[in-house]
Amino acid sequence: MAGSKDLSVLRHSAAHVLAQAVCELFPSTLLTIGPATTEGFFYDCLPVGGNFKEDDLPLIEARMHEISKRNLPMLHEQISKERARELYKDNPFKLELIDQIPGDTVGLATQGDFYDLCRGGHVASTGDVKHFKLLAISGSYWRADRNNQPLQRISGTAFYSAEDFAAYEQAREDALRYDHRKLGKQLDLFSFHDEGVGFPFFHPKGKLILNLMTNYIRRLLEERNYLEIATPALLNESLWKQSGHYAHYKKNMFFSTMEDATYALKPMNCPGSIIIYRDRPRSYRELPLRLAEFGQVHRFELSGVLHGLFRVREFTQDDGHIYCTPEQIEAEVTSTIGMVYTVLAKFGFNDIEVRVATRPDNAMGSDELWDTATQALKNGLTSSNVSFSICEGEGAFYGPKIEFHIKDSMGRTWQCGTIQVDFFMPENFDLTYVAPTGDRKRPVMVHRAIFGSFERFLGILLEHYKGLLPFWLCPVQATVLTITDEQREYAQQLVQTLTGHGIRTEMDHTSDPLAGKIKTAQIAKTPWMLVVGKKEMANNTITLRQLDGKQEFGLTLDALVERAKELTK
Amino acid sequence: MAGSKDLSVLRHSAAHVLAQAVCELFPSTLLTIGPATTEGFFYDCLPVGGNFKEDDLPLIEARMHEISKRNLPMLHEQISKERARELYKDNPFKLELIDQIPGDTVGLATQGDFYDLCRGGHVASTGDVKHFKLLAISGSYWRADRNNQPLQRISGTAFYSAEDFAAYEQAREDALRYDHRKLGKQLDLFSFHDEGVGFPFFHPKGKLILNLMTNYIRRLLEERNYLEIATPALLNESLWKQSGHYAHYKKNMFFSTMEDATYALKPMNCPGSIIIYRDRPRSYRELPLRLAEFGQVHRFELSGVLHGLFRVREFTQDDGHIYCTPEQIEAEVTSTIGMVYTVLAKFGFNDIEVRVATRPDNAMGSDELWDTATQALKNGLTSSNVSFSICEGEGAFYGPKIEFHIKDSMGRTWQCGTIQVDFFMPENFDLTYVAPTGDRKRPVMVHRAIFGSFERFLGILLEHYKGLLPFWLCPVQATVLTITDEQREYAQQLVQTLTGHGIRTEMDHTSDPLAGKIKTAQIAKTPWMLVVGKKEMANNTITLRQLDGKQEFGLTLDALVERAKELTK
Repeated sequence: MAGSKDLSVLRHSAAHVLAQAVCELFPSTLLTIGPATTEGFFYDCLPVGGNFKEDDLPLIEARMHEISKRNLPMLHEQISKERARELYKDNPFKLELIDQIPGDTVGLATQGDFYDLCRGGHVASTGDVKHFKLLAISGSYWRADRNNQPLQRISGTAFYSAEDFAAYEQAREDALRYDHRKLGKQLDLFSFHDEGVGFPFFHPKGKLILNLMTNYIRRLLEERNYLEIATPALLNESLWKQSGHYAHYKKNMFFSTMEDATYALKPMNCPGSIIIYRDRPRSYRELPLRLAEFGQVHRFELSGVLHGLFRVREFTQDDGHIYCTPEQIEAEVTSTIGMVYTVLAKFGFNDIEVRVATRPDNAMGSDELWDTATQALKNGLTSSNVSFSICEGEGAFYGPKIEFHIKDSMGRTWQCGTIQVDFFMPENFDLTYVAPTGDRKRPVMVHRAIFGSFERFLGILLEHYKGLLPFWLCPVQATVLTITDEQREYAQQLVQTLTGHGIRTEMDHTSDPLAGKIKTAQIAKTPWMLVVGKKEMANNTITLRQLDGKQEFGLTLDALVERAKELTK
Repeated sequence: MAGSKDLSVLRHSAAHVLAQAVCELFPSTLLTIGPATTEGFFYDCLPVGGNFKEDDLPLIEARMHEISKRNLPMLHEQISKERARELYKDNPFKLELIDQIPGDTVGLATQGDFYDLCRGGHVASTGDVKHFKLLAISGSYWRADRNNQPLQRISGTAFYSAEDFAAYEQAREDALRYDHRKLGKQLDLFSFHDEGVGFPFFHPKGKLILNLMTNYIRRLLEERNYLEIATPALLNESLWKQSGHYAHYKKNMFFSTMEDATYALKPMNCPGSIIIYRDRPRSYRELPLRLAEFGQVHRFELSGVLHGLFRVREFTQDDGHIYCTPEQIEAEVTSTIGMVYTVLAKFGFNDIEVRVATRPDNAMGSDELWDTATQALKNGLTSSNVSFSICEGEGAFYGPKIEFHIKDSMGRTWQCGTIQVDFFMPENFDLTYVAPTGDRKRPVMVHRAIFGSFERFLGILLEHYKGLLPFWLCPVQATVLTITDEQREYAQQLVQTLTGHGIRTEMDHTSDPLAGKIKTAQIAKTPWMLVVGKKEMANNTITLRQLDGKQEFGLTLDALVERAKELTK
């Protein structure tokens, strides 16, 4: 399989083919830039005489295939800026780019009679750009700045081999098919309504899953000596000014002005946690103090960027704040890394990419503190046998952090989980603890979350599992299907017994034939269909039918309960 | 013990004695009205030439005792309005009252040379007013209308017997001593902060109690086939207009205007529940549909009326909405009554007063529907062997209700729990279900809550139990106290073992002597102090010391675990 560097060469080349196709079909179009991305490639253009429409994509794609067939050599040379300015005298975007390239020359890529300003890195010929697809037309801005000229972005993707392309197409189809918004409706988990755009409504089955997730995390928190707190949803504007949220995050906050003050809905839980920390003097004996909160936060987002559970305006964080000494950071980080891996594995994620973001230029706090903290993060990862990459200078101004990116069953990555060291908040809120010497000292704060957002994580889970949640997370684990009404009483007893054993069991009360009942359970993705007919009733057994159609006959109740126990361990 | 009717006669008489004392001490004072209340009595006056101060209370009280000793007969006669107007020519309040009394005469009470406009109902002599106390000076308004003349209210209470008065004094002292705000701080359960006046911050131990309460209710809900949902905290203003909250409750709601709409924090959970109900067509087979929500609501209250956890601006309801047919109301009400009694008994409340509020004049809905619903409430109570009083015409315009009032250990009553039938919301939101005939029909909605507010109920619990919560609700159930450091390891093992058995156990890590450790556990009101010394360690036993000082020696671990199991059943 081609590495990602190779892929970017191909995709950048595909962008040139796209540009050529566009210029052949719409000669007055002004080209701007056309890079490769992690997902594919795009070209931003300024159409002249009418915008591009979705309908134009097949036309452009067809022309790209034609250019590919021409098998034009893709050449690259350095030319003088003077010559480049002459070539682009009618294109202010390219002229701006030329001005900004250091030195006297610029690169020019050529394929047939098409040329494009370019740093280089192409495949040999347009014939190598074979397995591609245009995906979308969207709006963009020159240099991604809303104050600049609006442009149109045509995006697509490309692969070296037909197999890779087919795998991509399959993943894309799966992503559409297993869109969590569709699954949420199909499985009756949640809904969205005009009465609160961006605010999810959790139906009984969805809320049950959230409760199972919460209980699971709560158990781990208990084992790891976290203490759970609950802080207010609304707090005074003045607090948010002190915390810095007002200055940096105001646009995303919901404010409410009442007779006595202006309040804001919390967009983050840290200030609340801090207020509890400093409610009374703290001793070194209490550190590390691990405060956890399942805190519901509100963040205003424009309706255009809302996306099912992935991006909402109200969500609950599995938040935690550890107050500790600088010396304790490493042990806390190590333990937290362990917890992150435990949780992610429990939810079926084993492919995790880890990044450490280090000191940026505008950092606060002493070099020594930064070194201690960054080293603590690295040591924690190393001692946990976790390999990681360094994102130099990409930490927040208030401290370094670890980011965990998980890969789902369709190959997409999601940032879930962060461990963030924070020197700023303890300083800002004058947090102290009494050291063994009796002196007041400043603790460090470690923010950490694993799901990040319960809602978003549920969305990811649904897509990752394609709706087939692991047994322990299924809102309904078993449904009893009778063949005739004669087994109704036996079935009802079964429901009661299994429920008594903690197996979430329902009964299909309809008078549908067995095939219909199976269909219903399949749509609801209930993992166990317990079929009971005359024979099962006579032998006091059950036939277990699973979602893949596999059947096991003559199971005893005990065997079933045992099986469920195994699956929910 | 004197009935409440008698007590009001005494207390009204005490108000006359108070008025006489005030007039003797401050002759230019204008009297307005002085009724008995359920707690005592008050007199509203307009002081002339300087307000009354707290310091004046002992002076006035002393004069009242003097008047009592004078043993003046308390007489009552009817006099002509003409004569009354003459008597009160300088008192515009009394003149206004005279005008409003129907007929040509008014009542006049006389004791010595003091007289007061009065409907009658007094004790025989001022000498009967013996056991009383003045409690407070506060502000009031003529006819309780903020637009009218501000007045000063002097309030007090009175009892027939010295014993009743002593019991009252004791309860009053207890109420101050066991004020939940004090206990909340002492037991480290919660705090209030200037950063959010009226918004409680729950510390780990307080949050743990709330979680235990939630888990307990959740278990009952499961048994009773409720389905838990979660609806958004913020919803569009338009929804609150439709629900009627905007018209009736706007002043108590937090609004937030963003780019795209104006939102309000939910003051109640019903509209959210309704949106889930009507998310898809409902069949009669689904009814009764019992949706429960631990919904956090926000209600703005003036800071003057806030009072610890009793009155906050943010709280969580143990809310439930039952959608059913009119025929199903009775069974649902009966089952809910059962649940109310189960829950209240679990929390130590067995003295419960029940009221049924019936159809008011401005009612909506047909007579038939009201009759069915009211009869269902009464039948439910009767079949549950619950006696109740009728508050004729005091139901809401949208349906009748049951109110449960609990009496705490200090004799105070609190409204906890309501079952409210609602015809309005289903109509207003056009809720329907498909009947067996295929017709669309209108369900009835039953709102019900037991705690009402978790926060307020926790406050009541703390005062009711005087801080000594039942074992199963104690955030820390046991604390291990070593006599010397030699038992440290043994103690640590003990903590681990007991924790493994689900007993919330801590260890006192200080180097305080045993007496100091006992003192600490007493302040924290930890029910079990597990003392381990040389002997206990040698014999592998524990000494159990309870909060009342009772000690049991030589207990085995098994016996202790067994005891805990009994207590948390």
